[in-house]
Amino acid sequence: MDELAIVEKLKTLARATRASGSGIVLGIGDDCAIFRPRPGEDLLFTTDQMIEGVHFEAGQDPAITGHRALARNLSDIAAMGGEPRFCLVTLALPARGRDQWIQAFYRGLLRLARRTGTELVGGDLARDDKIRCDVMVCGAVARGKALRRDGARPGDALYVSGRLGRLRWNGRIQPRLSLGQSLIGRATACIDLSDGLSLDLYRLCKASGVAAAVDRVPVASGATIGQARLDDALHGGEDYELLFTLPPGAPKPRGTTRIGTIVRGIPGAVTLEGRPLPPRGYDHFRKR
Amino acid sequence: MDELAIVEKLKTLARATRASGSGIVLGIGDDCAIFRPRPGEDLLFTTDQMIEGVHFEAGQDPAITGHRALARNLSDIAAMGGEPRFCLVTLALPARGRDQWIQAFYRGLLRLARRTGTELVGGDLARDDKIRCDVMVCGAVARGKALRRDGARPGDALYVSGRLGRLRWNGRIQPRLSLGQSLIGRATACIDLSDGLSLDLYRLCKASGVAAAVDRVPVASGATIGQARLDDALHGGEDYELLFTLPPGAPKPRGTTRIGTIVRGIPGAVTLEGRPLPPRGYDHFRKR
Repeated sequence: MDELAIVEKLKTLARATRASGSGIVLGIGDDCAIFRPRPGEDLLFTTDQMIEGVHFEAGQDPAITGHRALARNLSDIAAMGGEPRFCLVTLALPARGRDQWIQAFYRGLLRLARRTGTELVGGDLARDDKIRCDVMVCGAVARGKALRRDGARPGDALYVSGRLGRLRWNGRIQPRLSLGQSLIGRATACIDLSDGLSLDLYRLCKASGVAAAVDRVPVASGATIGQARLDDALHGGEDYELLFTLPPGAPKPRGTTRIGTIVRGIPGAVTLEGRPLPPRGYDHFRKR
Repeated sequence: MDELAIVEKLKTLARATRASGSGIVLGIGDDCAIFRPRPGEDLLFTTDQMIEGVHFEAGQDPAITGHRALARNLSDIAAMGGEPRFCLVTLALPARGRDQWIQAFYRGLLRLARRTGTELVGGDLARDDKIRCDVMVCGAVARGKALRRDGARPGDALYVSGRLGRLRWNGRIQPRLSLGQSLIGRATACIDLSDGLSLDLYRLCKASGVAAAVDRVPVASGATIGQARLDDALHGGEDYELLFTLPPGAPKPRGTTRIGTIVRGIPGAVTLEGRPLPPRGYDHFRKR
């Protein structure tokens, strides 16, 4: 297929993801997509890239790559309490096995898109020596109600969803959209765990101008044992769970664990059982 | 600089691009950017990638790369008659010379961003073996008024801005934002010339279900001569001029040339001085 044929095929597939009242006036096929916002809503925007050999291995099932490319962004929408509306997908890949790869990639991506009400409205396609994709997602949230990183206050309770340290580089991430939406008007701050608890908690505390005392971490049962397992949970990344704070006395949301308390202190300073827990999660440019 | 330091620096630089009343509630630094739409506006979304060795050469001045990465998207916003609002930028690059490259890239990008009222609100950064960047731009247009590809009707006059065939792979593109905005309510269809007149005119005609008869093309004075020069103007790409249609009798906008007429016929069929002009512009996946 040439580029025109691929775009025609995607148009048909994408139309199947359209939800009624989605606000999409025009999807794939013009210079831009056209979106009509609803009154009283703020819009959320996030983007995330995946590169062969950096974020995933060449042999990964393309349907999983497609799922993950969208899911990582939906996790950011979840962290702000948003409801996904649409996405744009940029893809570069080699010519060999291209048509089959593209079909499987979009099958994985569009399946999650349909399930979460995210319409594919545009993108860009190019040839390159390895696979690289970029997804941008727009979500919506009631005006002024988005969950942010910067609202945590001393005394707030610190929570995390799920169990940490699974190191899911290869699996299908399930973005915590319902949990995020349920935290609107309740959580004082929220962030998604993509780079590891120690780094993402540092970011939340730094943005809020507070410190945190962690006293327990819900560790996933995994392949590694003992200290290695705890290290994965603290610094491993790829959890895509939500880390959030609730005012003192608020009830614990289902499927979450209280892991500590927000305290006064140097912004970003975090302790685990009283000892300093420096940020050590994934940073693309840190010297290792 | 590590990733945290780079993001901090970008935050400061990006804030300088913020226009009053831009609608940006929260820019770089959280899981998502927050944007508050104005009532009565539709939003436009487009994305475009640039890859070292595919879209530009390794030795290109990074300030030009940054300018072009944004300008190519602004050209799409111009083609729909939009006013740019904000952008997200995804960047992957090798470690060597990284800090200097990033600074020059953003200097070029943010200079054009400031000039066009486009705020940088987010992005993503990764390490890779060569430079790749992706820009997503959001623009705004009065509700229901966006210029589209699909409104050309037989009898409409066909126009193009500027002169074609310069093959500006290396220079600073000037997106035709003012012209696009001035065509709102006047042009019946519009597209930007990124892949060459023959391919982009084919796309416009195909979307509108019409054919076109071209009788002249404004060729830029360039390095090549004679037939080669005309070929560049017809199929060369990288013009980033606007191609649009006006109802019969409408006055010619300044700085534009009438190149032909929309006619009844097989959708997408284009003739030049009576002879068929097949689409031959840039297609990443066409066999050559």
